Amino acid sequence: MTIDFKGKDILNGFQFSNQELNVIMETASYYEMRVKRGEIIKDLEGLVVATLFFEPSTRTRLSFEAAINRLGARVASMAEPANSSIAKGESLEDTILTVDGYCDCIVMRHPVSGSAARAAEVAVHPVINGGDGTSQHPTQALLDIYTIRKEKGHIGGQTITFLGDLKYGRTVHSLGYLMQQFNNKMIFVSPESLRMPEEITAELKSRGADIEETDDIKYALSQSDIVYVTRVQRERFPSVEEYEKCKGSYILNNDLLKYAKPGITIMHPLPRVDEIATELDTYEGSAYFRQASNGMYLRMALLGLVTGRHNICYSI
Amino acid sequence: MTIDFKGKDILNGFQFSNQELNVIMETASYYEMRVKRGEIIKDLEGLVVATLFFEPSTRTRLSFEAAINRLGARVASMAEPANSSIAKGESLEDTILTVDGYCDCIVMRHPVSGSAARAAEVAVHPVINGGDGTSQHPTQALLDIYTIRKEKGHIGGQTITFLGDLKYGRTVHSLGYLMQQFNNKMIFVSPESLRMPEEITAELKSRGADIEETDDIKYALSQSDIVYVTRVQRERFPSVEEYEKCKGSYILNNDLLKYAKPGITIMHPLPRVDEIATELDTYEGSAYFRQASNGMYLRMALLGLVTGRHNICYSI
Amino acid sequence: MTIDFKGKDILNGFQFSNQELNVIMETASYYEMRVKRGEIIKDLEGLVVATLFFEPSTRTRLSFEAAINRLGARVASMAEPANSSIAKGESLEDTILTVDGYCDCIVMRHPVSGSAARAAEVAVHPVINGGDGTSQHPTQALLDIYTIRKEKGHIGGQTITFLGDLKYGRTVHSLGYLMQQFNNKMIFVSPESLRMPEEITAELKSRGADIEETDDIKYALSQSDIVYVTRVQRERFPSVEEYEKCKGSYILNNDLLKYAKPGITIMHPLPRVDEIATELDTYEGSAYFRQASNGMYLRMALLGLVTGRHNICYSI
Repeated sequence: MTIDFKGKDILNGFQFSNQELNVIMETASYYEMRVKRGEIIKDLEGLVVATLFFEPSTRTRLSFEAAINRLGARVASMAEPANSSIAKGESLEDTILTVDGYCDCIVMRHPVSGSAARAAEVAVHPVINGGDGTSQHPTQALLDIYTIRKEKGHIGGQTITFLGDLKYGRTVHSLGYLMQQFNNKMIFVSPESLRMPEEITAELKSRGADIEETDDIKYALSQSDIVYVTRVQRERFPSVEEYEKCKGSYILNNDLLKYAKPGITIMHPLPRVDEIATELDTYEGSAYFRQASNGMYLRMALLGLVTGRHNICYSI
Repeated sequence: MTIDFKGKDILNGFQFSNQELNVIMETASYYEMRVKRGEIIKDLEGLVVATLFFEPSTRTRLSFEAAINRLGARVASMAEPANSSIAKGESLEDTILTVDGYCDCIVMRHPVSGSAARAAEVAVHPVINGGDGTSQHPTQALLDIYTIRKEKGHIGGQTITFLGDLKYGRTVHSLGYLMQQFNNKMIFVSPESLRMPEEITAELKSRGADIEETDDIKYALSQSDIVYVTRVQRERFPSVEEYEKCKGSYILNNDLLKYAKPGITIMHPLPRVDEIATELDTYEGSAYFRQASNGMYLRMALLGLVTGRHNICYSI
Repeated sequence: MTIDFKGKDILNGFQFSNQELNVIMETASYYEMRVKRGEIIKDLEGLVVATLFFEPSTRTRLSFEAAINRLGARVASMAEPANSSIAKGESLEDTILTVDGYCDCIVMRHPVSGSAARAAEVAVHPVINGGDGTSQHPTQALLDIYTIRKEKGHIGGQTITFLGDLKYGRTVHSLGYLMQQFNNKMIFVSPESLRMPEEITAELKSRGADIEETDDIKYALSQSDIVYVTRVQRERFPSVEEYEKCKGSYILNNDLLKYAKPGITIMHPLPRVDEIATELDTYEGSAYFRQASNGMYLRMALLGLVTGRHNICYSI
């Protein structure tokens, strides 16, 4: 069997086999090496990649645009949705068909779930989902497992605690599936009102996931090789009182770290507000800024693969 | 006689002789071929082109920026007029003189008619008008005739119906002149309140244009090799009632297509709202998305010609 | 002693010795020559430079982005601060650490004084201050002295009049220090309420600066080799009356020029509103648009030097 990503769309976090995920991570590693050696990479020279942000996200856009540029391709960027033809009543499909005529690959972020799949339906060129609504953010989930592989040396058979807002955080949803796919145990710790949605927990369990839910953050940390922290946003709570009551319990700091399993890796999709005290930034297991950097390499890998310019023949 | 575009400004749709238009279309065709062969084009390597959008237009900007990048040049982009020095009271001339010092060519769009000519007056480098006010949008008119040439194999002696808002659509004004220049017959079909302005019709006739105005859309379609549809915007009508009354009559769909001349080509400058039913998207004569793609090749041609980097000697 | 800028941050206008300033200007001159010869420069090929504008400034951003592109590097641009992670409550340090992971150099502009130094503290890659608050705008001061050197042939022992708003104009503050550093005499002419801040005048004098303050603009011009004009903004005045009263006195025009020392050079950081009458644009000593162009070459020099790609060994 041969693995070939050329022309494929990257739409969600479940679409890949473990072998495919491995190829993606190997490729990310390959590009990371080349960038760090200071190579001038021209793998995508002559190509134009459109970055269509129907919803602003400076961080994700900059990461993609750096990736595109580092591969030698060029960017055609829409960062400001307000001014787009959408405002004139054009359908998503028409916008995509038009841009598809200018470029060789489309990266898009959209506030409505399912938009990336609709775009992929009409586009001739590959579409990479940079996040659509609350449903998917596959490049984030992929960079997360790439980070785990780099930080821990391997990606399976470990315990990971998801801490914070597990209800609205699409990041932890996507990553949950991938963690299950690699046979990791998951512990969910969250405020009552921000628990992991029942249907996701059920789905994960039906796939055979080993899941534990607890309020005891110290216990969770003591059991975990990795803790994945997410932002707890005030506007997610029914009242300011409840927010204030909960907030403190979900802040990771030096005090809490004492209860953690030695060598625990701390991850966060960023931006961080105060869920992780800055005093932890110098702890060597704090991987969140390395995690952000990994995003660029992972995106380089996807771009190289779907355009067919990283044309290694992977047979498995 | 030699045709040389080096250093020339592209300001309006009337500035070219038929031979010059031919050179522009030949060049667009040449770049289309090179892009489609997957060539890495470096004709404009080392050059910086500024894209100054004093009025937002994502579609036109992306098309220009893709063209610039595909030629190997670099973009310096102003997409957000609100933040510009204009807001501080600077004159257009001062802005242009400043940007002219950074770049090798200026692409600009501006809400005020005549702005492109004012810019060209002070700039050392060539200025390409990406649309100024209601007066001119020459690159749209040029890509339209390039599309007709590609779709029909030739560009003269045909009948074209202009359908929709002929009063405010600068696209149909510019294209009208070019259609006359190539001896095509024109049929105008529009709501009463959105008819082609008298002075344009008069001017076209004084140049010898063969023009017919009618309310009978079926008749018009039956006579036409091409139908050019434009958006009918609610805000152009005196009342919502009048808009609702008119709207339906100017929607092209499968039903209406039955009355059309076989093989009729359907064009639209996009964005489309509902003037063309999506059921027509699969009709092989529907050229509007190909038309949008042609925009990039046509803009590559203009950029190659005015910078002098596409330095073929055309003698006629 | 060897001068090596590799990895250095460019934070303020006082950080350089005269020898270092000379190297920067020589390098700007070297890049200006290469651009004007039409060379395709690849000195920074393979590098990505982030331009983070936490405060919009189209002019400065375009100048930097043209410089980056002309060096063969690529841009990852944030032009619209409203959409950034900052809006989500992220600290400046976190934003910088994230972007630092994508790129090889950071150019930033920020509304708060001291931000560039804070960024440089955490970033691995060099930070170039494109203006932070009212404190510093070093690349403007450097392009100003580069302009003086080009216009006058040398940079020391001359008399320069600063005219207009000397209170809020960070440009004249930074340039003041550099003028002192090269032993130029300074004359300050401003409305009473917009005089040079006492602490800056004191600091300059303590460094041995020869400074004169006067209301007599004709006298000042008659003594000066250079006049540096800044915008007098209405909102800086306590009342409209006072603004209207003052305004006229600080407009440079042909009439006033009669009183000036022959060959006087007129500079302005732009944008200009009406402080310099457009009738002066054709006067050969009017250097303000050349000054703007010089900004690109000066920024190319800084980028080449701090990335270590312009790796000439300067020993002094």
